[in-house]
Amino acid sequence: MDEYLAELRFAPDGVAAGLEEAMRYSLLAGGKRIRPVLCLATAEALGREHDHVLPLAASLELIHTYSLIHDDLPAMDDDDLRRGQPTSHKRYGEDVAILAGDGLFAEAICLVIERQDGPPERVLAALGEVVGAIGVSGMVGGQYLDVKGEWEDLRQLHERKTGRLIGASITCVLKLGDTNERATLAFGRFAAELGVLFQIVDDILDVTGDEEALGKPPRSDERHDKRTYVSEYGLERAKDLARESHEKATAALDEADMDTATLEAITDYILTRSS
Amino acid sequence: MDEYLAELRFAPDGVAAGLEEAMRYSLLAGGKRIRPVLCLATAEALGREHDHVLPLAASLELIHTYSLIHDDLPAMDDDDLRRGQPTSHKRYGEDVAILAGDGLFAEAICLVIERQDGPPERVLAALGEVVGAIGVSGMVGGQYLDVKGEWEDLRQLHERKTGRLIGASITCVLKLGDTNERATLAFGRFAAELGVLFQIVDDILDVTGDEEALGKPPRSDERHDKRTYVSEYGLERAKDLARESHEKATAALDEADMDTATLEAITDYILTRSS
Repeated sequence: MDEYLAELRFAPDGVAAGLEEAMRYSLLAGGKRIRPVLCLATAEALGREHDHVLPLAASLELIHTYSLIHDDLPAMDDDDLRRGQPTSHKRYGEDVAILAGDGLFAEAICLVIERQDGPPERVLAALGEVVGAIGVSGMVGGQYLDVKGEWEDLRQLHERKTGRLIGASITCVLKLGDTNERATLAFGRFAAELGVLFQIVDDILDVTGDEEALGKPPRSDERHDKRTYVSEYGLERAKDLARESHEKATAALDEADMDTATLEAITDYILTRSS
Repeated sequence: MDEYLAELRFAPDGVAAGLEEAMRYSLLAGGKRIRPVLCLATAEALGREHDHVLPLAASLELIHTYSLIHDDLPAMDDDDLRRGQPTSHKRYGEDVAILAGDGLFAEAICLVIERQDGPPERVLAALGEVVGAIGVSGMVGGQYLDVKGEWEDLRQLHERKTGRLIGASITCVLKLGDTNERATLAFGRFAAELGVLFQIVDDILDVTGDEEALGKPPRSDERHDKRTYVSEYGLERAKDLARESHEKATAALDEADMDTATLEAITDYILTRSS
């Protein structure tokens, strides 16, 4: 996956090469690649080659990177470090950071339209799944609820802010081909639960993680006065909730009745990760 | 067109309603709707109903509005007024303005995927035409060249910054159906030239227009120390260039040999407009 991302070029004629540099700076800064990895693992579970979904998988990482760049901006979370490096606006200035985010978003869509194989109606449906997850009822809406503090319960907030795109990383692959109804329903439940699990563990790591592993100072939620699973339920109860969520997710996978070993391993990793 | 735009809702369940409000504030602030109007007029020239391309036409205005919101931000052009109203960040704050732009972009793509009729491969191609016009080799790249002053000649800058999306407003409709090669080539030339014409007149109006008609203080290019057609060539030569560009555009239309009366009227309007 990293190789595929590293080979992407956005300014092949050299015009606006500085913008391409800023986009690649954030895109290739490491990161766990959880969204593309979920996409590839879902393809594997459905008996498809990884190569077949690479453009779709890469588009998820471009979109995730765009959201991180915009979330880090001074007007939003005002973070200086991300993945152990200066954030985009610290390195390139706010104007370029805004445009680097905008550019990654546009290029993500282009990547799918230009390179994703499959019947056009399926490609369109897969793209709809991804973009639907990042509009007002998804990621961007979730970030709005977060910055304005306008949410009722944590699950509603995180379902939008991170859950929808994590889920779409799985469900977009289902849209790309024929999947039986039983498996579609099971994967759908798995995808939704995995987003919840991811966020609970994220909140726990913000309290228990160390700066080197996280690539940014811990306790940033506390500093931003954000309500999290830990602030709402306490650390121990949050850990229980994570284990319960992990159980629900793996149970959903079992119901799909397919070869989901890699997806199970990712689910375990999401529970036990240290960054 | 205005009615269609006014009926769009982005937060039907009421969650993140404040974000929807900010998106609609900018989307419904008036504006000339040149991109959707070009899209509808192209459909008309090809013998198709306006209704058939409404989602595609609306998506162009959502995208244009997103670009205005981001361009107006303090880190970019730092403009306080747009279309006679406070800009998005003045009214809602920078954080919400960034997200309103991001949200309009995502919802524009969703609109096409969910509502645009046509064979899926054609809808995908039309969407590719639009999104290709706003990536690094289009609008976002152009805005980067502008804020960094990293461009060689004005035509290269404006081709990206405004020309590609103006052009895509026409060519996306060609992608949606069968068009003969002669007409496709002619419309392509028309689309490219119209973008140039639009920009020259924009630069002239920034110098000659009055605040009431423009909806913002004139001479903002001068204040931002921007090189424009007027600063490069002087006002009189810029007016000549606009007339020459208008001639080229209408000549290209003639070659299409179709009923292009509405497109011709829009081309005349773009030359003679006062705002």
